[in-house]
Amino acid sequence: MVTDDPAVHKQVLDQVSRLIPDLSLTASPPQIAHAIHKMIRPFAPDIDPYRNIKDISNRQALAWLPRLRSDVQSADDPLERALRYAIAGNVIDYGPQHSFDLAQELSSAATQPFGIFDYSEFQKAVGNADTVLYLGDNAGEIVFDTLLIETMDKPVTFVVRGGPVINDATAVDAKTVGLDQVAEVVDNGSIAPGTLLDDCSDNFLDRFWKADCVVAKGQGNYESLSEAGRPILFLFKAKCHVIANDAGVNVGDFVLKLGGV
Amino acid sequence: MVTDDPAVHKQVLDQVSRLIPDLSLTASPPQIAHAIHKMIRPFAPDIDPYRNIKDISNRQALAWLPRLRSDVQSADDPLERALRYAIAGNVIDYGPQHSFDLAQELSSAATQPFGIFDYSEFQKAVGNADTVLYLGDNAGEIVFDTLLIETMDKPVTFVVRGGPVINDATAVDAKTVGLDQVAEVVDNGSIAPGTLLDDCSDNFLDRFWKADCVVAKGQGNYESLSEAGRPILFLFKAKCHVIANDAGVNVGDFVLKLGGV
Repeated sequence: MVTDDPAVHKQVLDQVSRLIPDLSLTASPPQIAHAIHKMIRPFAPDIDPYRNIKDISNRQALAWLPRLRSDVQSADDPLERALRYAIAGNVIDYGPQHSFDLAQELSSAATQPFGIFDYSEFQKAVGNADTVLYLGDNAGEIVFDTLLIETMDKPVTFVVRGGPVINDATAVDAKTVGLDQVAEVVDNGSIAPGTLLDDCSDNFLDRFWKADCVVAKGQGNYESLSEAGRPILFLFKAKCHVIANDAGVNVGDFVLKLGGV
Repeated sequence: MVTDDPAVHKQVLDQVSRLIPDLSLTASPPQIAHAIHKMIRPFAPDIDPYRNIKDISNRQALAWLPRLRSDVQSADDPLERALRYAIAGNVIDYGPQHSFDLAQELSSAATQPFGIFDYSEFQKAVGNADTVLYLGDNAGEIVFDTLLIETMDKPVTFVVRGGPVINDATAVDAKTVGLDQVAEVVDNGSIAPGTLLDDCSDNFLDRFWKADCVVAKGQGNYESLSEAGRPILFLFKAKCHVIANDAGVNVGDFVLKLGGV
């Protein structure tokens, strides 16, 4: 995305190829992606190749917000409806696959089947919490997180990545979409496309282990935290067979799963 | 195709990855495939993983032969029609892509546009030759080569690969489809999916350089011989953008091209 020079492409290919034998089959996708992106980043220092895509995603999502907010407010169960839109927004993803239809996803969100729907656990965990730690995923998607946070009506700390990786949301995106108006925004100190606890800042880890309630959006957070050792409410759309099989759902299903332990 | 064991998959992946930095961007696809297959082959010694696919291709193609032979014999220009079926048969390919429709390809072969059609050069070169050296490509496809060879009505030496690689035709396939009834069959002494002159036997090289006329089927032979340094009549279906661009035709086009010099 940052150069047309085949010699540079070959250099990147060679470096990544040399790395592969060091990667374990048991490494999670965010661990592998983190290792690869760390290696590629010096080829384009100070460039965020996905900045433009992230800006477009934020704008597109913001254009949907008034309609969805009014739909949530008039729904029989506003929290359930807001959860659905937050998961539908998880379709915005420039990592594993590049094609998605946000309009279609949002239109069918209200009736989309849940593969797992730990709703009562979610209501209980959020209801009993003084504050919620909410781990974000992608740019654009965070607009729909804003709507869920408004609807949850709890003090929320929203966590973004510590720097640009793929189209994952950073502090810039949180500010752009106004997420800082409904939550405290912090970053996790890591530039991995997930939450690799080994790579996160002490400040984040302190919040993570002490939080009353943790909500984690997206496959990257599920892949890196599904065995973290504390209760986490995972919200994501199952976008590939590996994750769908792991969670025991079908590809395309919405998932609200209490896990992490 | 020969094991479900992820540990073996990982070993193969690691070995191929280590090889990539040594591969040049100017290496041809058959050179790269040869290096990779050479490395993978020891993981499954004495196994020809494509044997079953090749048997099926041969049987399917043989089922078409009587119909196509009668169509060729009744055509206004039998040689042109036989050329078309020989190129249509080139759609049988389990290398770069796994999906094709042989029936569809053969049905439209008579009217399929040629991107390049050096037909008078072909007629002249074959007409003036005492013998023709015909470099084959894939199993199944060689049935349609048989029909072209019958129609050319010249003594032909047909060249197969020196051993199994992907679904390329070997001496076993030539015997199975009866190609040995219409041509002398020899192998090139190499197990590359193309004709890498550096890797071929002296016996083959002697025939190659001395031949009155060389016909070469398929992309693999085009990729490895397009700059061989002697006139060659290439017959293939352009199956990917790289080859189509190189030849100056559209993907899907039939090509009869005098090249090699």
